Amino acid sequence: MKNKTILLASRPNGVPTQENFAFEVQDVPALQEGHVLLKSLYVSVDPYMRGRMSDAASYVAPYTVGEPITGGIVAEVIDSRNPQFPKGTVVMDRLPWQQYIVHDGSGLSKISPDIAPLSYHLGILGMPGLTAYFGLLHIGDPKPGETVVVSGAAGAVGTVVGQIAKLKGCRVVGVAGSDDKIAYLKEALGFDEAINYKTVGDLKEAMAQACPDGVDVYFDNVGGEISDAVYLKLNKFARIAICGQIAYYNATSAPTGMRVEPILLKKSALMKGFIVSDFAQNFNTAAKDLVTWLKEGKLQYQETISEGFENIPQAFLGLFSGENTGKQLVKVADREG
Amino acid sequence: MKNKTILLASRPNGVPTQENFAFEVQDVPALQEGHVLLKSLYVSVDPYMRGRMSDAASYVAPYTVGEPITGGIVAEVIDSRNPQFPKGTVVMDRLPWQQYIVHDGSGLSKISPDIAPLSYHLGILGMPGLTAYFGLLHIGDPKPGETVVVSGAAGAVGTVVGQIAKLKGCRVVGVAGSDDKIAYLKEALGFDEAINYKTVGDLKEAMAQACPDGVDVYFDNVGGEISDAVYLKLNKFARIAICGQIAYYNATSAPTGMRVEPILLKKSALMKGFIVSDFAQNFNTAAKDLVTWLKEGKLQYQETISEGFENIPQAFLGLFSGENTGKQLVKVADREG
Repeated sequence: MKNKTILLASRPNGVPTQENFAFEVQDVPALQEGHVLLKSLYVSVDPYMRGRMSDAASYVAPYTVGEPITGGIVAEVIDSRNPQFPKGTVVMDRLPWQQYIVHDGSGLSKISPDIAPLSYHLGILGMPGLTAYFGLLHIGDPKPGETVVVSGAAGAVGTVVGQIAKLKGCRVVGVAGSDDKIAYLKEALGFDEAINYKTVGDLKEAMAQACPDGVDVYFDNVGGEISDAVYLKLNKFARIAICGQIAYYNATSAPTGMRVEPILLKKSALMKGFIVSDFAQNFNTAAKDLVTWLKEGKLQYQETISEGFENIPQAFLGLFSGENTGKQLVKVADREG
Repeated sequence: MKNKTILLASRPNGVPTQENFAFEVQDVPALQEGHVLLKSLYVSVDPYMRGRMSDAASYVAPYTVGEPITGGIVAEVIDSRNPQFPKGTVVMDRLPWQQYIVHDGSGLSKISPDIAPLSYHLGILGMPGLTAYFGLLHIGDPKPGETVVVSGAAGAVGTVVGQIAKLKGCRVVGVAGSDDKIAYLKEALGFDEAINYKTVGDLKEAMAQACPDGVDVYFDNVGGEISDAVYLKLNKFARIAICGQIAYYNATSAPTGMRVEPILLKKSALMKGFIVSDFAQNFNTAAKDLVTWLKEGKLQYQETISEGFENIPQAFLGLFSGENTGKQLVKVADREG
């Protein structure tokens, strides 16, 4: 059986391109005792992976040139010599971008196919959903009646942030980059206001109009001028959760811009960076809440699913041109079991 | 009896000058029932007053052009028709820059002359001491063995920050602007390292050398390039207390520079602005700790005291050229009682 792998061919300088990826074909080796053979079903592509393509120190180790890219994958056990993971089991883990993966089982999380569609475990019930949950609730700490602004609002994290903020009784303002996304946020997800930063003209003026009572919580996926417009509207004791800074991921030198520090001083405001693993001790509680809200219909969830293993790099590159609404995934294969 | 008052003559554009201040002479009015006559003894000049000279929204209300400047003053009751404040009582409050002040007594804090020199209540036992205490302990939350960096280290707040951090078992690195200050920090106050940012050359390299284990807590009075050098050495889960941003107080447009947000993200770091009044509920506990440490000789305290009411503006202006070590005060008169 032939097996395709996607390797990091070279490190990007600025915006990544197809040339930074290489495909390799090898045979699937015979299965040893204790191992399982996984077939990749859904592959997650996420903005944080851009950081791993560089070799600068970051919160996650960089990928190695010539080695497979790794990321969140939902896979099915299609052959097993490990009794813990019988054939037909569906699992999730950070795994190499391969069609077939030989694995000893350590660290694999079993997924129940009954809770939700399998792909949801890479999104609203996985890393992006947990990221939204902890950043908003543990750092943002929103109170009923407060104003919450989220940038990258139509993305995998932002859509969940806004909906949880609505659940908590807040006024929610989203910032995104197309009219389709704006309509989705307001009509499907119930955001109070949404700003198309690409067409709005004066972003600061638009932010001021959308937030007549100022901003109490800012969940930032983006950085740059969108953040500057929010900073100018911060209320006393505002909280800012820094989840992503996609505006700078392809920067080739240290980004510069408006200093936020004097504003934090004036407003006694808090700003905190985080990564979801900071909250690993509380994952179970969060997952229970998310499943409950999903089952009760309180959370809407949208995916953009590309098809085909060969299209993984293109799906990843699309994240930086704003092509996706909601969680971007690639469906690689159907489930067998 | 004649009484001099210092008014805000005009709002500064950039660095303040003598011309922004005006002197006025009036008679001291007769004392009404319930009022006291105060004689100013010590007048505090502080960097935050620069913000109040502008009319931009800030955390404290701006001064009014043509009205007296106000600030921390220790004064003596020299005549009284208020039984709560008999003649000879020493009090402290935010008061107008006047030699003599008629006051109804509301809000005045009595000072015990036995605890410490009277002027200490404008410094280590007053606003600057409390600012150091809360910013370091409630935001910075330093643990034994951690590295604490403080900018504006030789100032009224910085000297207390560094000493409390030493009390808590930390490695303490100060940044200041003269060799005399550096010697004072290391020799008198026990800082582990101190950097003269004016003469050091490569500030980033010096910071890296002074902090071989990185930076866990940064207490920032200054902003600008000093902060940039610290940011590059932040450890995972670092805490930054933004107490002052004197580098920008005289800026005439929104300051720009290196973006701190991507670094906070990478390091899961916290940054929080504050003003001492945010912690008003805990003032008593803090004051008790500070008095105890002072009496036990665990806190050293230095003042730069100018003499003469007429020299108050000059003492204030000196804050922005780095002339003072420790707390800058002006002694206006001797105590009578």
